[in-house]
Amino acid sequence: MHAYRSHTCADLTKANEGETVRLSGWVNRIRDHGGILFIDLRDHYGITQVLCDPDSPVFASVEKLRAEWCVRIDGVVKARDASLVNPKLPTGEIEVFIRDLEVLGASDELPLMVFGDQEYPEETRLRYRYLDLRREAMQRNMVLRSDVVSSIRKRMWAQDFREFQTPIITASSPEGARDFLVPSRLHPGKFYALPQAPQQFKQLIMVSGYDKYFQIAPCFRDEDPRADRSPTDFYQLDLEMSFVTQQDVFDTVAPVVAGVFEEFGGGKKVDAPETWEQISYADSALWYGTDKPDLRNPIKMQVVSEHFAGSGFAIFAKLLEQDGTEIRAIPAPTGGSRKFCDRMNAFAQKEGLPGMGYIFWRETDGQMEAAGPLAKNIGPERTEAIRQQLGLGVGDAAFFLGGKPASFERVAGRARTVIGEELGLTDKNRFAFAWIVDFPMYEKDETTGKIDFSHNPFSMPQGGLEALKGDPLKVLGFQYDLACNGYELISGAIRNHKPEIMFKAFELAGYGEDEVRRRFGGMVNAFRFGAPPHGGCAAGIDRIVMLLADTANIREVIMFPMNQRAEDLMMGAPSEPTSDQLMELSLRVIPQE
Amino acid sequence: MHAYRSHTCADLTKANEGETVRLSGWVNRIRDHGGILFIDLRDHYGITQVLCDPDSPVFASVEKLRAEWCVRIDGVVKARDASLVNPKLPTGEIEVFIRDLEVLGASDELPLMVFGDQEYPEETRLRYRYLDLRREAMQRNMVLRSDVVSSIRKRMWAQDFREFQTPIITASSPEGARDFLVPSRLHPGKFYALPQAPQQFKQLIMVSGYDKYFQIAPCFRDEDPRADRSPTDFYQLDLEMSFVTQQDVFDTVAPVVAGVFEEFGGGKKVDAPETWEQISYADSALWYGTDKPDLRNPIKMQVVSEHFAGSGFAIFAKLLEQDGTEIRAIPAPTGGSRKFCDRMNAFAQKEGLPGMGYIFWRETDGQMEAAGPLAKNIGPERTEAIRQQLGLGVGDAAFFLGGKPASFERVAGRARTVIGEELGLTDKNRFAFAWIVDFPMYEKDETTGKIDFSHNPFSMPQGGLEALKGDPLKVLGFQYDLACNGYELISGAIRNHKPEIMFKAFELAGYGEDEVRRRFGGMVNAFRFGAPPHGGCAAGIDRIVMLLADTANIREVIMFPMNQRAEDLMMGAPSEPTSDQLMELSLRVIPQE
Repeated sequence: MHAYRSHTCADLTKANEGETVRLSGWVNRIRDHGGILFIDLRDHYGITQVLCDPDSPVFASVEKLRAEWCVRIDGVVKARDASLVNPKLPTGEIEVFIRDLEVLGASDELPLMVFGDQEYPEETRLRYRYLDLRREAMQRNMVLRSDVVSSIRKRMWAQDFREFQTPIITASSPEGARDFLVPSRLHPGKFYALPQAPQQFKQLIMVSGYDKYFQIAPCFRDEDPRADRSPTDFYQLDLEMSFVTQQDVFDTVAPVVAGVFEEFGGGKKVDAPETWEQISYADSALWYGTDKPDLRNPIKMQVVSEHFAGSGFAIFAKLLEQDGTEIRAIPAPTGGSRKFCDRMNAFAQKEGLPGMGYIFWRETDGQMEAAGPLAKNIGPERTEAIRQQLGLGVGDAAFFLGGKPASFERVAGRARTVIGEELGLTDKNRFAFAWIVDFPMYEKDETTGKIDFSHNPFSMPQGGLEALKGDPLKVLGFQYDLACNGYELISGAIRNHKPEIMFKAFELAGYGEDEVRRRFGGMVNAFRFGAPPHGGCAAGIDRIVMLLADTANIREVIMFPMNQRAEDLMMGAPSEPTSDQLMELSLRVIPQE
Repeated sequence: MHAYRSHTCADLTKANEGETVRLSGWVNRIRDHGGILFIDLRDHYGITQVLCDPDSPVFASVEKLRAEWCVRIDGVVKARDASLVNPKLPTGEIEVFIRDLEVLGASDELPLMVFGDQEYPEETRLRYRYLDLRREAMQRNMVLRSDVVSSIRKRMWAQDFREFQTPIITASSPEGARDFLVPSRLHPGKFYALPQAPQQFKQLIMVSGYDKYFQIAPCFRDEDPRADRSPTDFYQLDLEMSFVTQQDVFDTVAPVVAGVFEEFGGGKKVDAPETWEQISYADSALWYGTDKPDLRNPIKMQVVSEHFAGSGFAIFAKLLEQDGTEIRAIPAPTGGSRKFCDRMNAFAQKEGLPGMGYIFWRETDGQMEAAGPLAKNIGPERTEAIRQQLGLGVGDAAFFLGGKPASFERVAGRARTVIGEELGLTDKNRFAFAWIVDFPMYEKDETTGKIDFSHNPFSMPQGGLEALKGDPLKVLGFQYDLACNGYELISGAIRNHKPEIMFKAFELAGYGEDEVRRRFGGMVNAFRFGAPPHGGCAAGIDRIVMLLADTANIREVIMFPMNQRAEDLMMGAPSEPTSDQLMELSLRVIPQE
């Protein structure tokens, strides 16, 4: 017989009755029922009930076992009485009577119980991660993550993509965050950087003629920690294609994403890729107050300025006399009660706005009546016109925000989310996708007046070089995101592969040719030697798994994450270097005051 | 029609005759044949001959094209005359007459020709890697590498392994090389390390109950560069299993390796896993003079001390009077000429030995005769006994080395290799594998007399705690390598998962409990909480691909390698940090004298 097991703890059924078997695993629970010891023996695959009566030659040893001891047992499979069958366990028809026992690994007293649902502080969980990872929920999440990644690979291969690995110890590849630096021992005073993304390398792979690239790529950004962000390394599905348009990228990646959500979404509805809307950045801001809309929420905001211009609601009427102002409505079907409307108004005030005006429609004496101070101010005709535009009726409400969109858009978006959730309009049982397209290339800093790239400087401007000769703020990029349930799942672009357009694009944002060459020289030089048009995107693996595992904490889907201070307490990282190490690297630490 | 292509450059055949098609790619070659321009248009998939006669509306533009310009052409597919069909090209039956042209990316003058076999200095190739990577041999190697890695993944999944990613910015995980360090911004004066291998993490994954783990894992070692070693990052197939014996690991990994070599070995013979010998480290040293034997070479060395003890060959006879000395023979079938024997003797001298004695057998007057000074010295009876032991005959030779094995073993091994190659005994058309097992746990430093680990300190000693109570130099580990064609392809072990055995093992090598806890605390602590027996191995991906691509230079199988000074000249790494960056990291560079 094998030294450790003839079967896993998920294998045995009634068909094995009478067999002598060998199992290895951990003591999940041990109970004493009238002198008979019941042990739930657990391995990665399942649980088998093993038991030991005082007749067993190893009863005395079994008595000493405690939770999480790792043991090997030999025993005989017996069928359970029909009344004792556990239909929830694959092995629920049988139990194994222990005849021999070997302790493979004893355990000290546990700082964290593996069995059961007791909650522990995150620091405890991370310090004893190897115990935390034994728990059922973590086993499920880690298996999910691994299976998602392998499914993504299979789907990319099926579309004739090849995975190529790009350097990790390399030059800075800035993506707007800080680089992690690695001092060079062979070149004192010089440093490598860990890539924030393989952006330049994947573009170089296209210039090298490989046509279709992907990589489950580790990315490194020295960012201040956040619940949904790893403070050190994280993974992207990174892909790039040559000779493609934006639509080609969508047609390639949408079935991969949809397929993964279908496969691992636990039965939730997944919008079919052919139904994914393409929403311009401007429309998304208007309709949803964000470029990461949650489309499970059916609420779509609308401009209703015309109904307030010159109306009796002086605040809005006055506002509209200023340039660039608008009044927008958030329709709230089924939200038609004063209590709900007041709560939403309070929400807006908490978010820093003066408040949200509202109208709600109720039935009084068999007649529809528009209620709320706003309706009074603007009068029944305008109120009715608003109601008709928004398609609302009795029992519904609408909220109104006014001013320059930039001043209230984000809050409007958050209000839309809260309204959707509170009214139960948001379908929690669905993954809803949309491509956000036509991002502006540039934005103006309101205080300095300086023009800068609003997103990715490497994107091809729509209209090419010509477009860059007009108003920069009107230039749109071939740049896109995939939004899912309120998150940005993917971000990408058709790249600017023409050096003259690239230098011009950077010039508009105030970067001279020298600086561009200095910062992106590897890529820009390559573009001088027959660069193909190309584009691609990157999808956050951690985010995809978080959505599928239904958790908002990234540390639930990473095996050995850092804590929120970017420390690994289990492994003791970061730590003080030895003076020899510093000497070899020609470095000195500046003492802290 | 698609903006860039209706077909790839490998797609078109006679079946497309008469179609108007659109192709994109690079000008591989352009030739002028009597006023007609012939272009080999190349993309990742193949080459299509396109041509342009002076009637074409874009003739003038086509005339301006140069090698490696990236272009889009529209044209009409015509069948070639039977006499012009090129059977070597999938598209060799047709050519495309250009009707429209768009230059997608022009090219400056080329520092490196893509078409043809011209050799360039490695620095040029690395600086213009995007051109070098377009060349046929590099395209083939990169595709091979990608396909090998994906084949390995599929084979591991098929055996129910899951891939789990382990941290990259983490704590030191020493494997005998220097760590790359990463300064922490949030914890001034402290550093992370990049893992030399995921050794501790994969063992922690086993302690966490995941049963079977693998990872195509980036590893980081700050080593001085060598032709067959990447000076920064490289990849391993890293795997680990719980509840296994050494044989289980072999049975798991052998079919993966054999399968990959069968799939990508280009028809070379691949030894079937069930024929892979298990050779003890001691036997391997004796028979092959190395623990990485090339078994394509049939030569097996033998101990022939008895034939020289007390013989007339005074040097060997005297030598054998000292403790621990041996005479070993390298049989050299078909090597029976004085010229060859003298050349091998000279080889040994060049390698620093006094020389190699030899005997060779020839036919003189229809009689077998043993020739060479050694045969004369020891006389015919001993000579004949040696011949019979070695199974040699007329036309063969044998070489002899004596002394303490450590003093000549390595040279003997190299002589065996040279003899096998020069005599054509080594079957170049084969991948020959063997497991090397029973490595000694400890070795003694000849000068200091100090006992230290000879290989991996984490291996389980054969015989467990008991074995550690005797002579350390006699303790063998459950530790193994896979040798292939003279390279170490895999290295692994059954791990020491019992804290008390681990501390004892370290104690023998002079490491106190405190030091073990300090250096490997993460893992050692984990072993106190029910650690399962486990083991695994790691296989060098770069090495596997090098063998399959038949190259000895690792930079031929890595997309963007560092040069031998650990620099990336294309990207400009490493580089000087800004003073802001150093300030943020609380570091100062010590000026070089």
